[in-house]
Amino acid sequence: MLIVAERINSSRKRIANAISERDASFIQTEALVQAKAGSDYIDVNAGSFRDEAECLKWLVDVVQDVTDIPLCLDSANPDALSRVIPVVKKPPMINSINLKPSRLEPILPLVVDYKAKVIALCESESIMAATTDAKIDIAAGLVEKVTARGIPLDDLYIDPLIFPLATNSRSALASLEAIERIRKEFPGVHTICGLTNVSHGLPNRKLVNRTFLITALARGLDSAILDPSDKELYSALKAALIILGQDEYCLEYIHAYREGRLG
Amino acid sequence: MLIVAERINSSRKRIANAISERDASFIQTEALVQAKAGSDYIDVNAGSFRDEAECLKWLVDVVQDVTDIPLCLDSANPDALSRVIPVVKKPPMINSINLKPSRLEPILPLVVDYKAKVIALCESESIMAATTDAKIDIAAGLVEKVTARGIPLDDLYIDPLIFPLATNSRSALASLEAIERIRKEFPGVHTICGLTNVSHGLPNRKLVNRTFLITALARGLDSAILDPSDKELYSALKAALIILGQDEYCLEYIHAYREGRLG
Repeated sequence: MLIVAERINSSRKRIANAISERDASFIQTEALVQAKAGSDYIDVNAGSFRDEAECLKWLVDVVQDVTDIPLCLDSANPDALSRVIPVVKKPPMINSINLKPSRLEPILPLVVDYKAKVIALCESESIMAATTDAKIDIAAGLVEKVTARGIPLDDLYIDPLIFPLATNSRSALASLEAIERIRKEFPGVHTICGLTNVSHGLPNRKLVNRTFLITALARGLDSAILDPSDKELYSALKAALIILGQDEYCLEYIHAYREGRLG
Repeated sequence: MLIVAERINSSRKRIANAISERDASFIQTEALVQAKAGSDYIDVNAGSFRDEAECLKWLVDVVQDVTDIPLCLDSANPDALSRVIPVVKKPPMINSINLKPSRLEPILPLVVDYKAKVIALCESESIMAATTDAKIDIAAGLVEKVTARGIPLDDLYIDPLIFPLATNSRSALASLEAIERIRKEFPGVHTICGLTNVSHGLPNRKLVNRTFLITALARGLDSAILDPSDKELYSALKAALIILGQDEYCLEYIHAYREGRLG
């Protein structure tokens, strides 16, 4: 199970403020909290700034000053990515590509050159895939494009996209089915998902988000973009891993319990 | 989703005491709490008493006095079942049969005569099925026996059994795989499961139990034996049902939220 820690995202007001004010200590605290809670990658996003490349480079520098956990460069802007990636110390994850040529063509060479992992969204020039079949069609296109560049499938993390249940009662089911089919039809490819979109417009959003995570894990999801310092979410994740036979002798679960990390 | 409410079970000390003392009001409160929380059947168990038939009959009478929710007669004793079932007002569920002839042969005629639903455990004379294949083998035997008597498959609820994760890290996975395969290989048959065994010997048992429920629902479980008045468990169930597309427009979920039934 691979965890991408999501909190350093400029769509959050406190993060945007910290970036504006170049408050390194606030960002570094966020990084360390997530590192301690359990992160494989720390996402950094400055997408809400006009000078995104400069802000993202600053984020990368301040986070790398306090932790050696690799970074997930979260940008839809190929130019920002290409300017920032040279200063990244460890092979990063790039978040994200999709099937749009304007994004795919300039970013794939960066994935190759920097031996990066890459998150690929099930969306193309014309659609954001909402049905299972549409998600699988785009996943097939992504696998083809990535393979053609010689990128190992093990470095590809396909995000099936998840739309709010409040507007479509079958949206989560389509994502779950896609996760299962991607693993079966494209062996070796990983699946990844954010959790917050599913609950948009519903009460008790965190309950819905963590329940979705558990169902997705049960259908084969092997990585997620989440906040590992959310104790109830982290507990749900740890419990799901013992149930799914991915925590031999329940050692990780018991360890997390003893450290007080289970809610 | 069918819920069998589990609390009126003589393995619980307070229930055993209430049965011993013929404390009808205590039992009736338990019945009403579960009825209000959301139950399709109310389980009644007097299995820890030597005069089980008499105690079970008393339980049936006192519960039927306060609610018309149908009962799930929980006994491994064909003699007790045959003596009690005539006083049951609505077609009950019988909990349970297995492949042992000593249990199967006398109980199946009761299922037929009283148009009961029946829970069938994946165990035989020689084994309690621990692997997926063993569970499926026994499930096939159960389907054959039940079909031979003309019992509709819609009345059959197969329990794949779940053993503690603390002693076998793959025990839950075997049950999840069995749930999925039973639904695929025996269309029309239901699956059911208790939740408490999975967490035996682990810390934070309720977290593990409700996480197991969500994973099982994600793999196709369509009924469960549980305590619907456990607010966190009930919340997990309701959230899972919206995610799995089984709650059109999230109406049930939002209704439960408005009634304060989500934790």
